[in-house]
Amino acid sequence: MIQKVAASEIHQICAAALLRAGAPESHARLQVDLLLEAELRGRASHGLLRLPRIVARIRNGVADPRASGRHDWQGDGLLQVDGECGLGPVVACAALDALMERAATTGVALAAIANNNHIGMLAFYAERVATRGAMLIALSTSEALVHAWGGTKAMLGTNPIAIGVPAAPLPFVFDMATSVVSMGQIHDHALRGAPIPLGWALDASGRPTTDAKAARGGAIAPFGEAKGYALGLAFEVLVAGLTGAALGRAVRGTLDATEICNKGDVFIVIRAAQMEAMAASIALYLDEIRDDAPAEGFRRVAIPGDRANAVRAERLRDGVPVAGNVWDDIVALARA
Amino acid sequence: MIQKVAASEIHQICAAALLRAGAPESHARLQVDLLLEAELRGRASHGLLRLPRIVARIRNGVADPRASGRHDWQGDGLLQVDGECGLGPVVACAALDALMERAATTGVALAAIANNNHIGMLAFYAERVATRGAMLIALSTSEALVHAWGGTKAMLGTNPIAIGVPAAPLPFVFDMATSVVSMGQIHDHALRGAPIPLGWALDASGRPTTDAKAARGGAIAPFGEAKGYALGLAFEVLVAGLTGAALGRAVRGTLDATEICNKGDVFIVIRAAQMEAMAASIALYLDEIRDDAPAEGFRRVAIPGDRANAVRAERLRDGVPVAGNVWDDIVALARA
Repeated sequence: MIQKVAASEIHQICAAALLRAGAPESHARLQVDLLLEAELRGRASHGLLRLPRIVARIRNGVADPRASGRHDWQGDGLLQVDGECGLGPVVACAALDALMERAATTGVALAAIANNNHIGMLAFYAERVATRGAMLIALSTSEALVHAWGGTKAMLGTNPIAIGVPAAPLPFVFDMATSVVSMGQIHDHALRGAPIPLGWALDASGRPTTDAKAARGGAIAPFGEAKGYALGLAFEVLVAGLTGAALGRAVRGTLDATEICNKGDVFIVIRAAQMEAMAASIALYLDEIRDDAPAEGFRRVAIPGDRANAVRAERLRDGVPVAGNVWDDIVALARA
Repeated sequence: MIQKVAASEIHQICAAALLRAGAPESHARLQVDLLLEAELRGRASHGLLRLPRIVARIRNGVADPRASGRHDWQGDGLLQVDGECGLGPVVACAALDALMERAATTGVALAAIANNNHIGMLAFYAERVATRGAMLIALSTSEALVHAWGGTKAMLGTNPIAIGVPAAPLPFVFDMATSVVSMGQIHDHALRGAPIPLGWALDASGRPTTDAKAARGGAIAPFGEAKGYALGLAFEVLVAGLTGAALGRAVRGTLDATEICNKGDVFIVIRAAQMEAMAASIALYLDEIRDDAPAEGFRRVAIPGDRANAVRAERLRDGVPVAGNVWDDIVALARA
């Protein structure tokens, strides 16, 4: 059921599918860069399985593969972006490029992006910015999938955060959802008929469940109990306050193929003079943490990104494992 | 042992103690505003018990009560602050005032603050900014008290984050440390001879412990397991990268009375045109969450700040409970 496909082949076939759907070549390539990078980092939930939905959204007129977003500088450092229903990473990277240029003189620049499609794995953007010598704080919202701490209904998005910080030789790249797991992991357990641990999710009536199928219609728990809930909620209101995005249960278009996407994305790019001098100290500090004696049950102490970098190296060498049905669907789209 | 003292009396006596230590009146008042607000919100760990140490730091020459920080705009939106060893909230509020003014034209402004003393409870700043119609993201580092996920030594600060977002009638104010508990709570259990739950801390040899006394010499757990650890680490390197602050075990001066404080603080102030229009939608959304049916074992669903606001109202009316020995020490400092 799982086959290994070379990264270069994945790139070519996926890009062909998007070209057929009407995307200009540079936009198709950027969208595929993002999906492939998720696969290379071992994050299949943000990888190839998203492509057929992106194509369907283009066909249904809720994604415009030619748009890259309209830019309106509301202040010297504050960019309002109307995503014009463009492809998520196309609109996001156009905004990032503008922020990188502006932050060279302002030191800090922020983009508040509305009306954009799903921007996928945020680590992609954090790495892009940090390897170019700047810092990034990225926030995004999504459809309500997560319950409040002490609540019973899905009221918050999985609201991820990513932070990229230059370090030598590799940047520090951190990316996480504020849910305890992704809805992708719940679906994966449901497909395999496997139970989920208690504490991951509630069923549709708001009761804790170990039944992955029941969890699909319920709500995922926030990570870190009350604190993680509060953090995800803070991101939800901050992003909506800056972008005018919908809130909570009113958010649409990150999981379906038919509705205009009304969530928001916020990027903050920072360029400070001393960052370059600090890159070496930060790398030393990260190594000091890696060298800490591991606790019982752990083989080593990891830094965010360590596992992703190892998996990427392996998959670039040996190919990317892709579920057969996912790959067949994409090949069909490329040849349709 | 616990006595109730009126907020106005606390303010007067604490300010007198700082005036005697050489603080100008406006600086003394601001420092006391911060400590008193922590007590009013029920956060005694960030309240009056900090005052004797602040006075000791002034006497030992590692806090200068007259300084308010030197400002150097490195870019139109990027303020580098040398705190000149000033009192934490004095330097912090001077920086915030500058950011608020600048963000009126740039939309976003960031302060990277080095060489400042402990800035205390971050909610104070988030509320200050959000009640004036802007958003704040605040980050700060501290001495290494928290272990890496899977590690055994204290390698990270408790690295709090606060976010303030305008909402009507009250702003949204969120403030948390990235540790599962504060070192203050560990000390409190140790003083009472009470055990701590497994998972809160490791002892000095890196083993999980329920002995609060043993935990004092060990390390607190990050909140939210691997994700909370990664988040706290991201804040540590982001703040250090922008401020040039010390990292991990090299941080000093947030817990002692004798060393120059070498941690960092970062503030990001954001003013966007649509924020005002969104304040009402955000308030409605927060009410929708409060109205969710509570899960088993919960009486209601809370929004960050709900409990603090209730406690504050009660304490403004009935007085603030203060440990007798803490109050005696402060009264002695005010009359010394």
